[in-house]
Amino acid sequence: MMDRICILGGDGYLGWPTAMSFAAKGHRVLVVDDGIKRRWEAEVAARPLVAIPPLSERAKLWNRMAFQRGAGQIDCATLNVASDPEVLEEVLAGFRPATIIHYAEQPSAPFSMASRDKAVRTQHNNVVGTLNLVFAVHARLPDAHIVKLGTLGEYGTPNIDIEEGWLDLEHNGRRDRVLFPKKPGSIYHLSKVHDSANLEFACRVYNLRVTDLNQGVVYGIETDQTALAEGLHTSFHYDAVFGTVLNRFIVQAALGLPLSIYGRGHQRRGFLDIRDTLRCVDLAASNPAKRGEFRVFNQLTEQFSIRELAERVTAAGRAEGLDVEVRHLDNPRVEAEDHYYNVRHSGLMQLGLEPHLLSIELLRGMIRTVVEHRHAIDQSSLHPQIAWRTGAEAQAGEREETLAPQPIRLVG
Amino acid sequence: MMDRICILGGDGYLGWPTAMSFAAKGHRVLVVDDGIKRRWEAEVAARPLVAIPPLSERAKLWNRMAFQRGAGQIDCATLNVASDPEVLEEVLAGFRPATIIHYAEQPSAPFSMASRDKAVRTQHNNVVGTLNLVFAVHARLPDAHIVKLGTLGEYGTPNIDIEEGWLDLEHNGRRDRVLFPKKPGSIYHLSKVHDSANLEFACRVYNLRVTDLNQGVVYGIETDQTALAEGLHTSFHYDAVFGTVLNRFIVQAALGLPLSIYGRGHQRRGFLDIRDTLRCVDLAASNPAKRGEFRVFNQLTEQFSIRELAERVTAAGRAEGLDVEVRHLDNPRVEAEDHYYNVRHSGLMQLGLEPHLLSIELLRGMIRTVVEHRHAIDQSSLHPQIAWRTGAEAQAGEREETLAPQPIRLVG
Repeated sequence: MMDRICILGGDGYLGWPTAMSFAAKGHRVLVVDDGIKRRWEAEVAARPLVAIPPLSERAKLWNRMAFQRGAGQIDCATLNVASDPEVLEEVLAGFRPATIIHYAEQPSAPFSMASRDKAVRTQHNNVVGTLNLVFAVHARLPDAHIVKLGTLGEYGTPNIDIEEGWLDLEHNGRRDRVLFPKKPGSIYHLSKVHDSANLEFACRVYNLRVTDLNQGVVYGIETDQTALAEGLHTSFHYDAVFGTVLNRFIVQAALGLPLSIYGRGHQRRGFLDIRDTLRCVDLAASNPAKRGEFRVFNQLTEQFSIRELAERVTAAGRAEGLDVEVRHLDNPRVEAEDHYYNVRHSGLMQLGLEPHLLSIELLRGMIRTVVEHRHAIDQSSLHPQIAWRTGAEAQAGEREETLAPQPIRLVG
Repeated sequence: MMDRICILGGDGYLGWPTAMSFAAKGHRVLVVDDGIKRRWEAEVAARPLVAIPPLSERAKLWNRMAFQRGAGQIDCATLNVASDPEVLEEVLAGFRPATIIHYAEQPSAPFSMASRDKAVRTQHNNVVGTLNLVFAVHARLPDAHIVKLGTLGEYGTPNIDIEEGWLDLEHNGRRDRVLFPKKPGSIYHLSKVHDSANLEFACRVYNLRVTDLNQGVVYGIETDQTALAEGLHTSFHYDAVFGTVLNRFIVQAALGLPLSIYGRGHQRRGFLDIRDTLRCVDLAASNPAKRGEFRVFNQLTEQFSIRELAERVTAAGRAEGLDVEVRHLDNPRVEAEDHYYNVRHSGLMQLGLEPHLLSIELLRGMIRTVVEHRHAIDQSSLHPQIAWRTGAEAQAGEREETLAPQPIRLVG
């Protein structure tokens, strides 16, 4: 059945591929974005590996191709979910989506930790944007299914198994089912904890239907649709602010720079391939939460330590003939480095998720792509300059010493 | 030892008496407020029982009297904690308080549920204000003790005992100590849950010291200092938006109107006398949290159902010769009406709190005070016009029927 799907934050790393993946199945898609993330990137001088055409151009290109392929159309609306609540409400009421995928959030932990101003803007953008969505749906589209992207980082690293959003507990001989207690690791992660609390309330009191996807660290560049044509690619960030750890390692490997591990690298995290993100969102949309239900899935396919991840990238780099080393940096974050970590994630598997596991082949493919674009890389952006305890200026002094650019050594 | 104490939100029902109680002990007090709550009250046409002089006039009157009594001085700073972060930082750095008592929040659940706009303003004001405070203290006064007023409503009504902020739990054979899982009952209560999460993070990552006081429903008009002179009184709200339930019952009893119980009245809540609020805040300030500690106390002295409360007010009213009845209204809120409720509250008792329990004498005194001012009362403001599921317009139609003004019947 063809549905109308709205993607909030449709210009982003995940938003744009999500839009195309729904459109490819024939759904009619509306992407909502005002480009604010591009402005946040400019504030910290972060650039994607390959420049990204404006959203409207990407949509235009898609729609020309869609005409040939029988795919759905992608329309764009330029509005800011946090600051344009009336427009958001009118746009949603006009489009009448069955599902609203909500990515429209400031997504970087380091950005949120850089200063008071960035901390406040992060929580304001994310919390108020989500509230605006709740009230628009409550007022105009109460049956629409909100699929909200959260993060595994909301949970932190508790010494107990991490369940999927809810916890059945017994205390002093009495029982209750409660939201899983969280211990987030940054102002950004806190903003998503607040969102989840607000959304659970919206289900309970406004009878909305919400799926909260607590997602692991996403890696990857290509999806079935980005590969269809040049100009349909998504943003690939490798910098220390907006890049995720595996993407950064790939870039470091491709440049012959040491992979920078924060601290000892024993930190364990959940990971998934960008193609599995698209599949998970699709499964959530196709199997909506019930009215009044706040449903939570943990969205990951594998759990690794950062050190294990570095070992895999090292192996992939060496297979590509690169000389890959690892360097441990003082951890700019405040986080446990030796901890228990066991995240349950059966919900999406039960709906039919078939994971793309992290393979050396995939890593080698990513490295080759990055090597093609290596002249565009801003090496200085790889180094963490935002320390959790002291903000943005913290590690500037260490920069030269720890990350003196090294020549690319293509061995063999 | 005389300290410097800063009260954020010093113009409010609790803020002003708190300022005077610290000053009465000889502490130097700075109250911070820009009067925004008076503007929120005007938006919903709520007025305190007795008009309140401007904060600066109350402080001037106090300071004239303090001169005679050897009490500390109260200074005022006009600034908005949520929107003036730089000024807040400079003011705090200049005053150098040992303790900062943070009341500067939008305090009404119904206000927060009236519309999207009021919901967003509530969460923005409370969350951003608290973040601004965190960053000011982190940057300039890292050793200052933040005493934050939270609410028991953050917990909701779980089917397990409510511990003081933290919960030791066992799950699948492993143990951890986690923030007590919360299920707040309004957008306002959610804002305080978000604050608590942000503050716990600030202790963990910025090494701040914070006491979070999860307070029950406060009642009362007089404190040792409000009684010292006319013009030192605090605001007493009885309306359905800013008034608390016991204060509203007192006004209804004084006017001969039926006490309006929302639903069956089996809802149990924690309560305390305003004089105990002052004592609790004093105990927290005198026994500060350690650096890095997020300490939580549940601040209440007794637990009653709403129906029990109405029975006590009925008894007090009858003892005053008034004809008091009870009327059950459709509950405008979404809340459990039959539920387990057992709140632990040993922390403040261990520090030396000696509760003023709710007595018929105290209720009779409150009723007499209200009777003196009964001609100033706006009866229409007593009736709830904000329903949780539908916002502000919800019950307007029922108003005439349920609350036809009744003559005051002074029996006997």
